[in-house]
This record gives sequence, structure tokens and C-alpha cells, in this order.
Amino acid sequence: MQYPAPISKLIDGFMKLPGIGPKTASRLAFYVLDMKEDDVLDFAKALVNAKRDLTYCSVCHHITDTDPCRICEDKQRDQTVLCVVQDSKDVMAMEKMREYHGLYHVLHGEISPMEGIGPEDIKIPELLKRLQDDTVTEIIVATNPTIEGEATAMYISRLVKPTGIKVTRIAHGLPVGGDLEYADEVTLSRAIEGRREL
Amino acid sequence: MQYPAPISKLIDGFMKLPGIGPKTASRLAFYVLDMKEDDVLDFAKALVNAKRDLTYCSVCHHITDTDPCRICEDKQRDQTVLCVVQDSKDVMAMEKMREYHGLYHVLHGEISPMEGIGPEDIKIPELLKRLQDDTVTEIIVATNPTIEGEATAMYISRLVKPTGIKVTRIAHGLPVGGDLEYADEVTLSRAIEGRREL
Repeated sequence: MQYPAPISKLIDGFMKLPGIGPKTASRLAFYVLDMKEDDVLDFAKALVNAKRDLTYCSVCHHITDTDPCRICEDKQRDQTVLCVVQDSKDVMAMEKMREYHGLYHVLHGEISPMEGIGPEDIKIPELLKRLQDDTVTEIIVATNPTIEGEATAMYISRLVKPTGIKVTRIAHGLPVGGDLEYADEVTLSRAIEGRREL
Repeated sequence: MQYPAPISKLIDGFMKLPGIGPKTASRLAFYVLDMKEDDVLDFAKALVNAKRDLTYCSVCHHITDTDPCRICEDKQRDQTVLCVVQDSKDVMAMEKMREYHGLYHVLHGEISPMEGIGPEDIKIPELLKRLQDDTVTEIIVATNPTIEGEATAMYISRLVKPTGIKVTRIAHGLPVGGDLEYADEVTLSRAIEGRREL
């Protein structure tokens, strides 16, 4: 015997989401059946609306419901610094810190020859175009400390440095509250490499 | 800065589901933004339809889109045996085994004085009503082997036994493929208690 069609469709829907297997999907589906009808309707609406109302900012490619996005529109922010990140969630992480007041550029991916993703497949041409009017004097490359993230950082740095714009990379080392004993070799070597005088 | 409204609403929606915290919710929400529009619409529809089209069978209280459900309608099944389970997922687990051909009764909960759930709050009165026409000769109590599940099983057994209907409880012991070394004391004591002659 199979589940009735409406519930197996819902289970299939949940299973399309990342990290949700058949067991979790059926647990979530049964939970939905016990939810208040209004809550389910709101959730369904939120799904459709998010997909329909959100676009990417035509300037920085951050996710937004207004174009250009609120960050690009904000004239209080430092227009001379650009932080290059991999996706919109990274912008949110940076904003949570409340200490960065420049602008962003979201790449939507990283260079990965293994997966056939080249510089043209992510927003690197758009980044270069933004740099043309000489407002920006520094770009901070905040791609992830992975092989692909580093390759992307290197690529951007080689491309941008000749234009005279300062290119910096965020520091890598021991996370605050972390334990030296449990740090992996690569992180530790980066921490030593990036040491600063006290 | 906050996420744009459409996405924070979607994150809130995901966070209402069990076991999904803020991090997972935002990961799922961003994933939805990258999904095909049709897939998102299908998922939203599945949510609404599941809530709208599914009801509980008026006989056994299993989740269904027809009333009575397909199991209760199936005249091939043994009408004299009733398996009492806690929720619809348990029915699906039993059906997957393909070896049980009787009917079910879904309690939708278990007796739990701590949480103020008494016999009247779950489908025990409905169970007693089903037993009145003398078709059923055995009920198999398959509630979970937890304190509440055991209490529920005991309660049902005391209520039903005087009527002459056989009341059995599914066996508890070592799971097949399990290791005696890692079994907890309670399971082991149940396994010894329920030993059978070879």
C-alpha cells in the first residue's frame, strides 16, 4: 500500500529540498497535516511569493525586492570599498557583523574547472564593469577558504591589481573561541602565515 | 539589515516545521529561490492540497483521501484482527512489511497523564465502539515501547479483556541485526522475559 496521492506528492515536494531524505520528508508532511490550515496557506503563499517577488539587484546581484537593492541605494555607505562574496547569504553574514559599511558584489558561485564553471559563468565580468568608473579604490575578496574560493580570489586579484585598485583578502586563521589543539593543519599554517606583530 | 520581506516570511514558514532551526530554514529558503518556478508552484500546491484533500478515515482514523479508507474497504483483509497503533505513520510501517492482513485502529496519540492526555483524548472510545459488533476476535496492541505507549497498551488490555476478545502485544527484544553488547538494559530484560522455547 502506498500513501494517498496528496501526501505522497507533498513528501516528494519536501524531498526535492537539500538535505531532506524520505524519512524527514514524511515526518514533515505528516506535521503539515496537523498544522492549522491558515499556517499552511501562509507557508504556501510565502513559497510562491518569494520565488515571484525576489530578484537580484542589477548592480551588486544581491537578492532583493527592490532594484537597485537597499544596500546599493544607501548613499551613507562607503562607495569606494567593494566586498566580493560568493552568495547572498554571505552578504547577510557580513551585515550581521555591523562593522562593514562599504558595498558588495555577489558572484553567485566560484570558479571551478572541475565542474566546468569559468569566470564568465559567475558575475566576474559584471564586477570588472563596476570598477571602470574609478569610484572603487579597494576590493575585499571574501570568497570561502576552499580550493575554488581561493582560485576565484587569485583570479580576481590578477585581473584587478594592474588597474591600480587595492585588492585585499579576508584573514584566515583560528576562529575566535577555537582551540589550537583541534585546529587542522591548513588553518594553523594560515594562522602562522598571517601572524601580526603585537 | 534584514532579509527582504518575501524571503524572511519564507524562512519563518520553514522554521515552523519540526527540527528546522534558523540556519536550516534560511538554507532551504535560498534553495527555493534557485528552484524552477514550476517546481515551487507544485510544492506550494501540494502543501495546500494535502491539507485540504486528506481526512481521517471515519472507521480506523488512518489518514486517507477516500472515506472509509482503502484498508477498511478491502474485503479481502481479515476483519477479525485489529492492530492498534499510535499514528498513521505506524500503519505505513506495518503495511510495508506486507505480512499483516488485518485491519487497523489509529489512536492519534497515547495516554500521558503528565501532558494531560487521557483515554478520551485519543481514539479509545471509538475503538471500544468498533468492538461491539463481535466481528473482532483479537486486537494486537502495537503502541510504541515507551512509558506512555506501555500505559496505553495496559489501559486497552484491561478494558478489552473482560469482553472475551484476545488482546496481544507486539514482541519487544533485540532488533534483528542488533548487537547484544550494545543493547540497553530494558531491551535486554524484555528480550529475556519474552524468550521462547526452540
